[in-house]
Amino acid sequence: MSASTPTPTPASTNKINITDLILRDAHQSLLATRLRTEDMLPICPKLDAIGYWSLECWGGATFDACVRFLKEDPWERLRQLREALPNTRLQMLLRGQNLLGYRHYSDDVVRAFVTRAAANGMDVFRIFDALNDVRNLRTAIEATKAVGKHAQGTICYTVSPVHDSAGFVAMGRELAAMGCDSIAIKDMAGLLTPYVTAELVKALKDSVPLPLHLHSHATAGLSEMCHLKAIENGCDTIDTAISALAGGTSHAPTESLVAALRGTPYDTGLDLEALQEIGVYFHQVRKKYHQFESEFTGVDTRVQVNQVPGGMISNLANQLKEQNALERMGAVLEEIPRVREDLGYPPLVTPTSQIVGTQAVLNVLTDNRYQTITNEVKRYLQGRYGQAPAPVNPELKEQAVGKEELIDCRPADLLKPELDRLTNEIGDLARSPEDTLTYAMFPEVGRAFLEHRAAGTLHPEPLEPPTSGLGPQAAPTEFNIAVH
Amino acid sequence: MSASTPTPTPASTNKINITDLILRDAHQSLLATRLRTEDMLPICPKLDAIGYWSLECWGGATFDACVRFLKEDPWERLRQLREALPNTRLQMLLRGQNLLGYRHYSDDVVRAFVTRAAANGMDVFRIFDALNDVRNLRTAIEATKAVGKHAQGTICYTVSPVHDSAGFVAMGRELAAMGCDSIAIKDMAGLLTPYVTAELVKALKDSVPLPLHLHSHATAGLSEMCHLKAIENGCDTIDTAISALAGGTSHAPTESLVAALRGTPYDTGLDLEALQEIGVYFHQVRKKYHQFESEFTGVDTRVQVNQVPGGMISNLANQLKEQNALERMGAVLEEIPRVREDLGYPPLVTPTSQIVGTQAVLNVLTDNRYQTITNEVKRYLQGRYGQAPAPVNPELKEQAVGKEELIDCRPADLLKPELDRLTNEIGDLARSPEDTLTYAMFPEVGRAFLEHRAAGTLHPEPLEPPTSGLGPQAAPTEFNIAVH
Ligand SMILES: [Co+2]
Ligand SMILES: [Co+2]
Repeated sequence: MSASTPTPTPASTNKINITDLILRDAHQSLLATRLRTEDMLPICPKLDAIGYWSLECWGGATFDACVRFLKEDPWERLRQLREALPNTRLQMLLRGQNLLGYRHYSDDVVRAFVTRAAANGMDVFRIFDALNDVRNLRTAIEATKAVGKHAQGTICYTVSPVHDSAGFVAMGRELAAMGCDSIAIKDMAGLLTPYVTAELVKALKDSVPLPLHLHSHATAGLSEMCHLKAIENGCDTIDTAISALAGGTSHAPTESLVAALRGTPYDTGLDLEALQEIGVYFHQVRKKYHQFESEFTGVDTRVQVNQVPGGMISNLANQLKEQNALERMGAVLEEIPRVREDLGYPPLVTPTSQIVGTQAVLNVLTDNRYQTITNEVKRYLQGRYGQAPAPVNPELKEQAVGKEELIDCRPADLLKPELDRLTNEIGDLARSPEDTLTYAMFPEVGRAFLEHRAAGTLHPEPLEPPTSGLGPQAAPTEFNIAVH
Repeated sequence: MSASTPTPTPASTNKINITDLILRDAHQSLLATRLRTEDMLPICPKLDAIGYWSLECWGGATFDACVRFLKEDPWERLRQLREALPNTRLQMLLRGQNLLGYRHYSDDVVRAFVTRAAANGMDVFRIFDALNDVRNLRTAIEATKAVGKHAQGTICYTVSPVHDSAGFVAMGRELAAMGCDSIAIKDMAGLLTPYVTAELVKALKDSVPLPLHLHSHATAGLSEMCHLKAIENGCDTIDTAISALAGGTSHAPTESLVAALRGTPYDTGLDLEALQEIGVYFHQVRKKYHQFESEFTGVDTRVQVNQVPGGMISNLANQLKEQNALERMGAVLEEIPRVREDLGYPPLVTPTSQIVGTQAVLNVLTDNRYQTITNEVKRYLQGRYGQAPAPVNPELKEQAVGKEELIDCRPADLLKPELDRLTNEIGDLARSPEDTLTYAMFPEVGRAFLEHRAAGTLHPEPLEPPTSGLGPQAAPTEFNIAVH
């Protein structure tokens, strides 16, 4: 935390804290992560005056979107936000040993990434692993603590025969023992229901002496109710988004939760009228990005029936469309729980959502389960993503892995330090350690970004001009979210 | 209730009942009341199989919209819905002595209206008065009981220095003493907050031995949380709308509440997948009415700050625009609470919302408060709408009424029977007592409707063809709801 930001306060008995997601998860969920820095900075003085516990503003898919589509330097975004938000904690979402990329990195890269993020202004590191394998969180947590920042250990919430409150509490205890400053429940799919939330929050608060944060997507329209029951059971901080980018696959509206708690022992103390002014700003901003709007932005409770996150359904629909097989969606939705069972019930979040979904599509389209096995499923069954929540299907493992190596150590234990190699590879294109990390996250796209920057040929993807009038509401056949 | 519909069951201890608003308040709130019977009937078999406590499908502004815009006979709609929904209670919203029109009717008209509505298939009459003056409910309640139907006495919820739980409980007791079968809390503006709801519901359940229903608009994004706290405090039935027409100025999504309560002692017992199928249907239907969509369909918490319902702000904006004075909106929003205080704090709902809003606009535009006093304010101060919740401003009353008559009786006590006169006036154009009541509700529009019907020249207003693509989200400058 930079000198000018407040030091974390202990959880008070009653007052509820708010983390606003408007600068990260809200536009990642509703506008394909496309919000540009130029549309964040003008509102920062008002955001900074609110008194949020934190503003989530970096990490997740934003790093990728900056480099790939917006041709913005994500590190420069972070520095600008730090300067524009001197009184507010900045928070990021970090995929544990995957950082913000799509593979496991060696520990020296993880340490370098966390260190540079902290040096550029990050205060709170929300760290998760798709399998809830805490070994994949250890280095990132240690690195965060080493630079004196707030390490938030994250429990990915899911529903399965092997997941229950006791298991999540055990994970919470491990995270506390690893030195985390707080715990987050991450309900990326909107699976939580109010009374399940109540029980889980109470169990965690009874057993883990750390501040508890709840992150529960509004996909199924249950988020507000879940937050209320979490608060009543001791949750300290809730994640919300300014109403202009709330609801649907995003989050509960900040203003609504603040209004709901006003004048009660849980009062957030935030100024509702000041929040409404920020809402008006983002309503205008949202129009600029209309080309990234999903056809469907309403409530969708299907996840409460089939447990398949909305973002997965979108990807599956695209995969099936390419194969002219959209009519097999029903079969795929029935196959997903079977594949998930075979893989030991991983939570469905990046990258496990893709791994399970793609294999389910193959199983359906070939009409022969596991006739083709993806390389990712094979690597998963080898243990290369970490430990599955439950034993995997032994026959499938035998079939996929054969005589090849199985590992049961932490996957990154097999990785040699790679920072020097990456530094050498990218050479003069990197003007800073941050540039090297950009290259490390995205070898091709990151290199291209640095090359274009050097050549002065960075051009953000074009935005379509504003349209007028209202389009029709579409049926819920497609979705547009990443599972974060 | 027709022979084939279930008899009302006593409130059980735990199981929560649902009234779905999809066929009335949902489209009244989001699509300017324009949903046509032809788009209701195809889904009725699925709606009828759900097991709702009731389907609200008639009354409010639908009668007006049928006759004025859709050129449908509202009575024929009712008969068709009755036939298509043999196993579900049909529910309507009735404005007490105003019925579905805009003035007080004589008792013989009220009795005739209720009797004919019952004869055509109506089961549950939700009866309210804008001033919560129970004298204006008496005849409608008695008429409902006289034909053996369910009379639901309604408390219009509002916030003011003279409104509190004790007062609402006193009104609930009066409604029970008048023979009501159940009580409804009607939060037309979305003013309720979860913990206020909890207290109010508990107070009513502790004192009034009748089933309690909650109707709370989602305008400010608090509806789901209010319902949850109502349920925990003994509320028996909640009002929701299928998700395709939920949220914003409409209501909490049915599917979300059903999902939230599944597997708990409050389980509704409704089939979530069957509800989702209905949701898909209405998503398609909604597209047909895109021309009636508001620019803004999201969450708007301003009512939690200024207590002015969203529907009023829309009307005020139109009034100010016509005067080229939209920039005075801030002054009008500050004037409304003062006018409301002068009038003894009426709840803001049809017609009091219009009475207060129009006078506030005049007070601001003339820069001289009450230099001009509307005829409606004068009539209000005379007592011709009933008794105000608190004493009105005596100087204003003196100024407005002067030496003219003040009344303190029930306004309808001054009305002679008028059914015979109405019957004579409309003559052969009425083919039935129902036609006469149509004419009674809307003398000009109703007569024109009957004339066109006789001439075979009924033409519904045209619908714009479907558009493609998504329009921009608009800033919350305008709204499109009636205050029901
Ligand atoms: Co998220
Ligand atoms: Co209503």
